[in-house]
Parts: sequence; C-alpha cells; structure tokens
Amino acid sequence: MNVFIAGLGLIGGSLALALRDRGLADEILGLERNEERAAEALRLGLADRIVTFDEGVAAADLTVLATPVDTLPLLAVKALNRVGKRQTVIDTGSTKGELCEVIAMHAARGRFVAVHPMWGTEHSGPQAARRDAFAGRNVVLCETERSDADAVALVEGLFRALDMPILRMGAEEHDLHAAYVSHISHVTSFALANTVLEKEREEARIFELAGGGFESTVRLAKSEAATWVPILLRNKYNVLDVLREHIHQLQLMRRMIERDDAEGLRETILRANTIRRILP
Amino acid sequence: MNVFIAGLGLIGGSLALALRDRGLADEILGLERNEERAAEALRLGLADRIVTFDEGVAAADLTVLATPVDTLPLLAVKALNRVGKRQTVIDTGSTKGELCEVIAMHAARGRFVAVHPMWGTEHSGPQAARRDAFAGRNVVLCETERSDADAVALVEGLFRALDMPILRMGAEEHDLHAAYVSHISHVTSFALANTVLEKEREEARIFELAGGGFESTVRLAKSEAATWVPILLRNKYNVLDVLREHIHQLQLMRRMIERDDAEGLRETILRANTIRRILP
Repeated sequence: MNVFIAGLGLIGGSLALALRDRGLADEILGLERNEERAAEALRLGLADRIVTFDEGVAAADLTVLATPVDTLPLLAVKALNRVGKRQTVIDTGSTKGELCEVIAMHAARGRFVAVHPMWGTEHSGPQAARRDAFAGRNVVLCETERSDADAVALVEGLFRALDMPILRMGAEEHDLHAAYVSHISHVTSFALANTVLEKEREEARIFELAGGGFESTVRLAKSEAATWVPILLRNKYNVLDVLREHIHQLQLMRRMIERDDAEGLRETILRANTIRRILP
Repeated sequence: MNVFIAGLGLIGGSLALALRDRGLADEILGLERNEERAAEALRLGLADRIVTFDEGVAAADLTVLATPVDTLPLLAVKALNRVGKRQTVIDTGSTKGELCEVIAMHAARGRFVAVHPMWGTEHSGPQAARRDAFAGRNVVLCETERSDADAVALVEGLFRALDMPILRMGAEEHDLHAAYVSHISHVTSFALANTVLEKEREEARIFELAGGGFESTVRLAKSEAATWVPILLRNKYNVLDVLREHIHQLQLMRRMIERDDAEGLRETILRANTIRRILP
C-alpha cells in the first residue's frame, strides 16, 4: 500500500513511523510546505519523498490529512475531487463537525473516513514524531455510515494493526466529548501559564519552587498556537460550554475559600477525587 | 541520630525511607494515630516503633512534623515545650506564615527549622511513601535567621545528604510562591475534574476519549481533602489572589473565543508558550 501523508508533524510523522515499523506501507509520500521541516522529515525517515498535494493524492492508496483543523475541510474536498473508487482519504483532526458537514454531499464522500487518534503531546513538528505514539490509545471513527464499507475496513484494519481500540461516534458527539476531555485541558494550561508568568513580572524567584504538580498541570501550555487556535475556534460552542462550567466551578471554590468553608471544600475535593474511578 | 516522625504518610514516610537508605538514622520512631495506617507503616518499614508524641519528642535528636498544615502550629509549640538544647524540630508543611508566627516568641524558637521539601504526588498514606521521592528536588528553609546555627547546620547537612538543593526565603515569600506554583495547580485540577464529572451525568461515554493531556491536567484532583483543605485555607489570601488572576485569564480567553479573535488567541498561546523557558 502506498500512503500519502499531508503534514509530517507530531501526528502525521508519528503515523509514518508506526506504518513503517509494522510494515504497513510500501512507500510513504509526504507533503510539508515549510522547507526546513520537509528536509527534517526526510532526514528522520518520515517520508520517502516530498511531493505536491496532487501528486500525493494521485499516487496513494491511502491519503492522510494531518494538518491543522482549519485547513482540513478544503483539503478533504480537494482530495475527494481527485480520488478514484479504490483510493481512501482520512484525516486525523481534533474537531469533526465542520469537516463532516463540508464533505457531506460530495459525490465521493464514501471514500472518506473521519479519524481521530486519541494521542498527542505538547510538542510539534517532524522532530516531535514518536515511534511509540499510538499503541494502546483509542482511535475514534466518525460517521462511518457515510463511508464505503471497503474504506472503513481498510482503516479499521490499519488501526487494529497499530493496536488501537476503535470507537465509533457521530461528529457532534465527538466534538462535545473532545471539548471536555482534551480541549479544556489546553485552555486551562494556557491560562495557568499566563497567570504565573504575569506574577513573575513582580516576583522573579517564583519558579524556584515549581515542582511536579505545577509541571504536569502546565505542560500542555507549551502546545503550538498553529494547532490550537483553529481547534478552539472550530469547536467554539462546545469549548465555550465547558469553559463556562469550569469558570463556575472555580468561582464556587473561590467563594468557599473566602468564607473559610472547610466543609464545602472538603465535599468539593471528595467529589473531584471520584475521578479515580475513571483514571485509576 | 534518632529521628521521630509525626505523620507517616506521603511525606513523612518517604523521608523515613530516604533516611534509612542513606543510613542517616539509627532509630526511627513514628506517630500515626490511625491504627490501620500505623500497622501499615510498620509493615513498610517506615518506623521501627510507634510511640506517643511525648515519647517521640523526648527520645529524638530530630523531630519531624509531617502532619496536615492545620495541625502544625500547635504541634510545633508542644514539641518546642519539650525539647532540650541539643534537640531539633522541623516541619514539612506547604504553608509557613501562620506556623512561623505562632512559634516566633517561643523561648525555644531556635531549636525549630521550618522546612518545605518541594515534592509530592496525588497519593496519600503510608503506602504512598516512595524511596526516590526527594533527590534532585529543592528544599526550602524559611526564616533560618531565627533558628540556632547548629540546628540549621544539622538540617542542611541532612537534606544535602539527600541530594536536595537548599533555598532560603522568608515565610511570607514562601507562601506566596507556593500559592502560584503548587496550590493553584490543585485548585484547577479539582475544578477541572468536577467540570467533567458534572457533564458526565448527561453524557455517560465522555471519558472514552480521555487521553494523555486530560490525565496530566487532572491528576492532582486525586489529592486528599485532609491535606488540601487546610493548605487552601491557611494560605487563603495568596490562593485567592492567584485564583482571581487565573479566572481573569480564563475569562479573557473565553471572550476571544466568543469573538473569533484568532489573533488574540494566538498571542495568548505564544505568551503561554514562554513557560518553556522555565520548564524546558
């Protein structure tokens, strides 16, 4: 199978490494507009050669769109405009609603499978690609009822070979859930980093005390704007919903601290502790 | 050196293991009011025997107070009431202002050294104690100018032997910094866990998508109420300051998302990215 990956960064690059390791791709063609990144991707073995978008789609059995989510709807349409009946196109984006809506009535809609592998780190670019990225992580397929059976079978076989449990859900359901368990974590990390950086202007020594807890809550604040601005805006209404609820929860705790309400804080923390049930 | 550790949980227990591993203690006496925890601490080798507070302080060259911060000021006074000129008392608490104020005029103030080892996890109790807890982590000593030189020398020697870089600062400075780089991370994690748990009541499948990012920002939400309610209330004004700023930062991002302000979000994220400078 020949694979074309548009975007050889964190996700596209890691997928290239995984496909190679499992012997799932004969040739990997890559698209990377930034010349430096393209050279680095070749050096790291993420692609055999760099091609144009049209060349890649034409030559590939499987096209993978792994670019920022704001570029996905148009790239998906352009790819579908060019594929034949035995070629398949997937994306790896973190939001699905707009993408699925844009391609809904495309004559070649059946050749597309909307995919979200649930893995990521705060790093970006070809050098962020990791061999051990996907195994054991869930992968979500959205609206598979609109995809051709053979395209879904190809994609499921591929992710099964990467040891990824497969979940199916609607695009809207996906976007809502992603807002709660991924997008909000990034918003809080960005805001937390800026909270502390703001204070650092007065208190130069503030980071001397930074320990493990701070590192883990603020880690995602290193994530790239080019990736995250489009995700937050494309998933706007879900992100705003969860953000409003989160600010409300913080205001409740703030009022309890103001009133020395030890019992209220205790109950709040005990409730939060039940997250152990989900993340043991 | 005989050591008495009041509170054989996460911090006291880990310190016991570290002292044993480096051969720094002849005998370790422990206090643990909860019988089950006491038995577990003995089984795990965190203490040679369980004693009363008075017995422990009397027998020990070094008394370590490793109990929740709301209990520390009175325990510190009681310990200082009982120590002689060659005995030393330290605490390991996460807030220092009230403690240092309460003992400020005690006749034996010089025998006390206020200590905060900058390490912790979301776990608690004797079984949470870890051998590798402290090496490489900072330890803060507060108001050492009020401690006797030999007591400070003993404590510095001990933490140097544990490979912990030593920082000195005032109690007020410590509490402000701890609010920014530790206490706020716990507040945001508790609030984030409750935000998502709240939504889960409508959407049972929400955690199927939880990936690495969510896990790391919500990890601290597993932390114990008995530890954290006192910390948040004893460091109330600093915690409220940082919480207000954090809510403000979240509201700024919320407004940018509402207005599709991609440029504002980009700048916000780029500013947050500069946290790399501090946490590479």
